[in-house]
Amino acid sequence: MNKKIAITAGDFNGIGPEVIIKALNKLDLPEDRVLLIGASCLFNGLNKDYEIEEIPFEEHWLSYGCETEQAGEFSYNCLIKACELAKKGQINAIVTAPVSKNAMHLAGHYFSGQTEVLEKNLANPANNEKAEMVFVSKDLRVLLLTRHLPLKSVKITKDLLIEKVQRINLVLKDKFNIAAPKIALCSLNPHAGENGILGREEIEEFVPAIEYLRAAGIDISNPMPSDTLFVKASKAYVNAQKQPYDMYCACYHDQGLIPVKVLAMDDTVNMTAGLSIIRTSPAHGTAYDIAGKGIAGENSMICAIKQALV
Amino acid sequence: MNKKIAITAGDFNGIGPEVIIKALNKLDLPEDRVLLIGASCLFNGLNKDYEIEEIPFEEHWLSYGCETEQAGEFSYNCLIKACELAKKGQINAIVTAPVSKNAMHLAGHYFSGQTEVLEKNLANPANNEKAEMVFVSKDLRVLLLTRHLPLKSVKITKDLLIEKVQRINLVLKDKFNIAAPKIALCSLNPHAGENGILGREEIEEFVPAIEYLRAAGIDISNPMPSDTLFVKASKAYVNAQKQPYDMYCACYHDQGLIPVKVLAMDDTVNMTAGLSIIRTSPAHGTAYDIAGKGIAGENSMICAIKQALV
Repeated sequence: MNKKIAITAGDFNGIGPEVIIKALNKLDLPEDRVLLIGASCLFNGLNKDYEIEEIPFEEHWLSYGCETEQAGEFSYNCLIKACELAKKGQINAIVTAPVSKNAMHLAGHYFSGQTEVLEKNLANPANNEKAEMVFVSKDLRVLLLTRHLPLKSVKITKDLLIEKVQRINLVLKDKFNIAAPKIALCSLNPHAGENGILGREEIEEFVPAIEYLRAAGIDISNPMPSDTLFVKASKAYVNAQKQPYDMYCACYHDQGLIPVKVLAMDDTVNMTAGLSIIRTSPAHGTAYDIAGKGIAGENSMICAIKQALV
Repeated sequence: MNKKIAITAGDFNGIGPEVIIKALNKLDLPEDRVLLIGASCLFNGLNKDYEIEEIPFEEHWLSYGCETEQAGEFSYNCLIKACELAKKGQINAIVTAPVSKNAMHLAGHYFSGQTEVLEKNLANPANNEKAEMVFVSKDLRVLLLTRHLPLKSVKITKDLLIEKVQRINLVLKDKFNIAAPKIALCSLNPHAGENGILGREEIEEFVPAIEYLRAAGIDISNPMPSDTLFVKASKAYVNAQKQPYDMYCACYHDQGLIPVKVLAMDDTVNMTAGLSIIRTSPAHGTAYDIAGKGIAGENSMICAIKQALV
């Protein structure tokens, strides 16, 4: 099956529409694989005739570099439309151009980001669905087991490990068509706790979770020191070899973000997994400071579109 | 001044002497820049006539792959000799081949590693000397502000920051001849704490420490999100450009080890700084499993020797 992806325009006062146009013109995808969500007049300059799902927009709203209520409302409406189409089965993945959280707030939509909008509208609790944050470059995929927490609040428990690994294992099977996913676990503590001398979570939380997961048929590694584990990932990455693991589970923000950004730099793609469909987005924001100048780089958007098509 | 480095043989039942011979034969250094500490018969095959400081050794002690009391005693004596020569000013840096902690214990020397032996014998408290752990590849240098701790025990205080940064600033001036060192600080929390929402250490500990250090004339950055900061380091590293900072201070083990190992992989050098002289060592251990087979790789030892000569 050929995947069809929806691409949302995001905040029209930012660089979203510009990088979408540049990326699509470079990627040269078949027209039936892309559905744009936004407004036709924002997509002037496309060299193909992609289908566009129109969201209410008036040209005089355009105000590059400004956080406006109209842009917040438009951004939000693009996302809601993407969710509708996803629920109807008309698209297989969503790529989101950046939005301004503040602009969405001005329009009365109090979400901390696009991920939360998608989760609220797409997650089916009966299927144990939840938005998981994954960072991706090529076939290097890193799941954050915990996300935006002060370091001292990071806690890894048996229940958390079981829930997240089960969910991501299903994602790898269903969305990435990997029949027997291999999943790697970073240890929380240096040297994987060195038999309890440098921390006991590996013994008390990781081991029972791993036993449970293996009994459920999941191919999960022992907790491995993250520096050693990511050297393996790095060797595969720089030599363009297949990654030894389909997913690396990092215990906290920096443990996962450092290796993927150090390797992929600006090609890092932010992925939301665990919902009925995959969503990707470029690593950058609205970039108000350069909006409307025609100088925004499309590379990150190209990577996001490619990952959505995997 | 041309530096003279001492290279200790390490545990003779491991791969130390083998990688020293291979590394020196490849590096082809002037004879007067190297002093070997060990035993002549362990260094057969050298293609130059380097001076050798003899440590008591009998050939029948050699027992590849075994942890023995004699090897522990010999390893320890090599280190003590290096410290003596350093105190007399006869050498400018030490490169240590790997030892076995257990073998040293068998010989009655209860240290957790070579660093502790060097610190005990070289650190001058009157000069505020202490062993600091730095990981290095080319001009990328990462200091660990805390080392082998369970993650939940990691604490960064104002006093710790001031002590470590002052010491490492002196090292950069005195040992690396950098007139005005530029030092970068990783934040403890993701997004540098996001104005206190994701942790308050940046506000309560980092800011006062930075004010103090700047008043003392030290060029220290604000706390920066480590993933962003190490992308800068990565771009310089892969493009063979000068690093924007002379030292990156990481708050804890994985935050510092992940980026340097992901970038440098097996070329990572372990450096002890903050004592009267610099010590470097390869990243690998005794590798008992391949000792005596002639198949050990010398690359890591080459990197350690080069860093000692910087």
